[in-house]
Parts: sequence; C-alpha cells; structure tokens
Amino acid sequence: MIDQRVVPVPAHEPPYYAVVFTSVHVEEDGGYGETAERLSELVKEIPGFLGEDYAGTPGGLSVTVAYFRDLAGIEAWRNHTEHRVAKAYGREHWYERYSLHIAKVEHSHGFERTGA
Amino acid sequence: MIDQRVVPVPAHEPPYYAVVFTSVHVEEDGGYGETAERLSELVKEIPGFLGEDYAGTPGGLSVTVAYFRDLAGIEAWRNHTEHRVAKAYGREHWYERYSLHIAKVEHSHGFERTGA
Repeated sequence: MIDQRVVPVPAHEPPYYAVVFTSVHVEEDGGYGETAERLSELVKEIPGFLGEDYAGTPGGLSVTVAYFRDLAGIEAWRNHTEHRVAKAYGREHWYERYSLHIAKVEHSHGFERTGA
Repeated sequence: MIDQRVVPVPAHEPPYYAVVFTSVHVEEDGGYGETAERLSELVKEIPGFLGEDYAGTPGGLSVTVAYFRDLAGIEAWRNHTEHRVAKAYGREHWYERYSLHIAKVEHSHGFERTGA
C-alpha cells in the first residue's frame, strides 16, 4: 500500500544545502520516534529550512536529508538547544553508527508521473 | 533485529560529491529490486565511486545517496548505457515521483559506538 501523501522534498533552485544523516540504530532505541517527531517540528522554525525527507529500512539503515537555503540555517539548527540535547542523548543511547555529510547542491531536478 | 553488517558509507575527506535520489514508487514496481541490485554492482566500476547508501520505508519514501570523488564520475554514471535504459524504464513503470540533488560535500563526520 503506497501512501500517496508521501512526496519528496522538491528540487529547489540551486544553490542550497543538503544535510545527509545516515544512521544504524541499536536494537532498542526507546524514545527515538517521539524525539524524532518533535525535532521534525522544531526544524521547521529555522530560517531557510526547505524541508526534509526520511526513509528507514526495517532492521537496516535510516537516512534523513534536510535541505536549507544556506549554511546559516544549518548552523542555527546545529546550535539549537533541544537539538543539541537530543544529539548527545542519541550518541549515548540510539546510534550504533552514523555519517553526516553537509553538501552544497549544484544541480537538481524532479520527476512527477503524469496524472500523479 | 538489527543487521550488524549494515554500515553507512563513512565520511570521506571533502571535497567529494553526494547524489541524493529520493523517490516514491508506484504500487507494483515489478522488476525494480532486481534492476536496483544490478545497478548497485555496475556503479562500483565507475572511477571515483566512493559508495552508496539506501533506505526505504515500506509504503513510503526511498532514499539512495551515492558518493563520488568528482563530477566526472557522476557524469560517467549518468551516461552509462545500462543505467540510462533503467532510468527511462523507471520513469515509465516504477516511479510516482522523484527528486534528484547533486551536491558538493563541504563538511562531514562520522560516529561509531565504542565497541561497535
């Protein structure tokens, strides 16, 4: 069953920034979902935030990609108090491993099925 | 059950490139898995390919992030014959929507749980 409301963040006009966060969680990541939901609301208040996409393979990798218009927005989010607390807690309790990549988007495009 | 063999592509020394491909599939995407597996083998032959991560939420978004040392590698992969054929087929048969972002990584870091 496909959830037709699921729509990826669209291609914006470059330049903008993508923050790619790829993680493997420990088996019991209690409280993660609730905190993730709270953070996904908070990040919307950051100036220049363009949207974020999340995908998680059950038992496998999770990838979150957040898009910002500029590095100032990324810096504001990085220093956001509640986000900082959650990150420190996550390193203690949730994550086996993660990689973070901050990247400037130079090209982008989108596709939508006719009639979708 | 966490698959402990799942390891994200590590942070490399910038600069390098990330190709973020975020998609929503049609309900019946016959042949997709087999082609995706074939392509994930082929891309390893591209000079400058650094690795790729995939995550897919059942019934939701899929995100693939492929990393390359430079734009020449991305261009070589974009023009790879079998990849081109698969992309055209995918637009006809597999994808409701997708967004593609090509981005130059400026900062990166990784985390690994002690003893992981």
